[in-house]
Amino acid sequence: MTDKQNRPRVAITIKPGAKLRLRDIDPRPQPALDKETAKQRTKANAVAIDELQDRLFAENKRVLLVVLQGTDTSGKDGTIRSVFNTAGPLGVHVTSFRVPSAEELAHDFLWRVHKAVPAKGLIGIFNRSHYEDVLVVKVKKLAPTELIEERYEQINQFEKHLHANGTSIVKFMLHISKEEQKKRLLERLANPKKQWKFNPADLEDRKLWDAYHAAYEIMLERCSTPWAPWHVIPADDNWLRNWAISEIVRDKLEEMNPQYPRLTGQAAQVKID
Amino acid sequence: MTDKQNRPRVAITIKPGAKLRLRDIDPRPQPALDKETAKQRTKANAVAIDELQDRLFAENKRVLLVVLQGTDTSGKDGTIRSVFNTAGPLGVHVTSFRVPSAEELAHDFLWRVHKAVPAKGLIGIFNRSHYEDVLVVKVKKLAPTELIEERYEQINQFEKHLHANGTSIVKFMLHISKEEQKKRLLERLANPKKQWKFNPADLEDRKLWDAYHAAYEIMLERCSTPWAPWHVIPADDNWLRNWAISEIVRDKLEEMNPQYPRLTGQAAQVKID
Repeated sequence: MTDKQNRPRVAITIKPGAKLRLRDIDPRPQPALDKETAKQRTKANAVAIDELQDRLFAENKRVLLVVLQGTDTSGKDGTIRSVFNTAGPLGVHVTSFRVPSAEELAHDFLWRVHKAVPAKGLIGIFNRSHYEDVLVVKVKKLAPTELIEERYEQINQFEKHLHANGTSIVKFMLHISKEEQKKRLLERLANPKKQWKFNPADLEDRKLWDAYHAAYEIMLERCSTPWAPWHVIPADDNWLRNWAISEIVRDKLEEMNPQYPRLTGQAAQVKID
Repeated sequence: MTDKQNRPRVAITIKPGAKLRLRDIDPRPQPALDKETAKQRTKANAVAIDELQDRLFAENKRVLLVVLQGTDTSGKDGTIRSVFNTAGPLGVHVTSFRVPSAEELAHDFLWRVHKAVPAKGLIGIFNRSHYEDVLVVKVKKLAPTELIEERYEQINQFEKHLHANGTSIVKFMLHISKEEQKKRLLERLANPKKQWKFNPADLEDRKLWDAYHAAYEIMLERCSTPWAPWHVIPADDNWLRNWAISEIVRDKLEEMNPQYPRLTGQAAQVKID
């Protein structure tokens, strides 16, 4: 990436322990670059991410784990398409976390998450994640308060363990306005190709908007760590969201700087009949 | 797809019980269309496969399972990139079968395969598969002959079961010449970005070329079924291989013809505040 210092940034990277109010963060900020430029850079970043993923795969020692959180319609699926389709399904594994199964509920809340951590060489994407256990579970009181309170630190320690074992972690909270969500829900209802995405239960969550925001704010305050930072992404504009996320993912992979292993000695001298 | 009847075909679809000799199948046939046209059609097919996968995902009832088999360097990874990157990692799950782990060997040979069958709505790709258990296992005598003999029918029954439960199956054997493999292995050795793919053990397999071909021929004869046919793909030219496979995958998805569910009744009448 040329000229990193002077790049416009729209993502807000949360410092450990920092208090913030989501209502103070503009989900559609005055863009620091125009839409066409952002789209071009997102494409270029997707190509670079593909090349870096190939090196990660060849090196076969480390993992990049991308956590996507955000309310319904915030654009998690669209982010995956825009940023990771170029790298493709051979190198990118997506796990979509839904309501836990009976078997999953019979274990501690990180059991299914640990199982889903991808193998070395891959980019893993969590489409929702273990953070649901301090979001929906907290808002809907699906577990005792004192248990939920313990989870923030348990999550931090879990992510620290992954990091210590070769997994780099970046976490994105896709931040949209309540008005934008309304617009997107209405679009889903109107579009025959999108109606299937409409779930009446989403409207129940919408009524709990403020409670969710409060839960997100605590999560951001307590679980942004040096080894697994949270980034809040203004997400009312898809193109700005995609560009902002693609920049951070590319930066992280460039920082990891995976290397193609070279053949040496006898292996390089083989004869093929 | 317009004009299906008059489309050139290069894939050879194996009839159940048909005996064939791979040496009689040209891995670089006189192409029925030129390279540029083939590349354009492959791209168009990839876009169509993406749209059909979206419908499959929305419908959430069925699965398409794509099995890729072929010797080292036959182009399994390249096929996935070319045909399935447009659909992307959200809708396409790749499972690469490697040497079985101790836990996998402690179970019957289809145990790990059944576990890897993707969830409804997805396209699953097996990069190698349960067929390794009648290929490498047969050639290298890793199991008793009488056990291997039973596997062909066990595989057919397993695939029949999957098919009866909503999984459509297409299987591709990527057919390259021994000369083309030599060329590709030398390319790997020469290219610093590809050296990591070179495995000296591949040369051992290369010495067993004829034994592998014999094992493939028996597999094709016994395991091409009405519910899970084998297609032999001439694969010395990447562009011809990609085009031929993308045509068959697109055809299969169009035949499945998944539908977007529509909202009806109260759900379509909701009011969003």
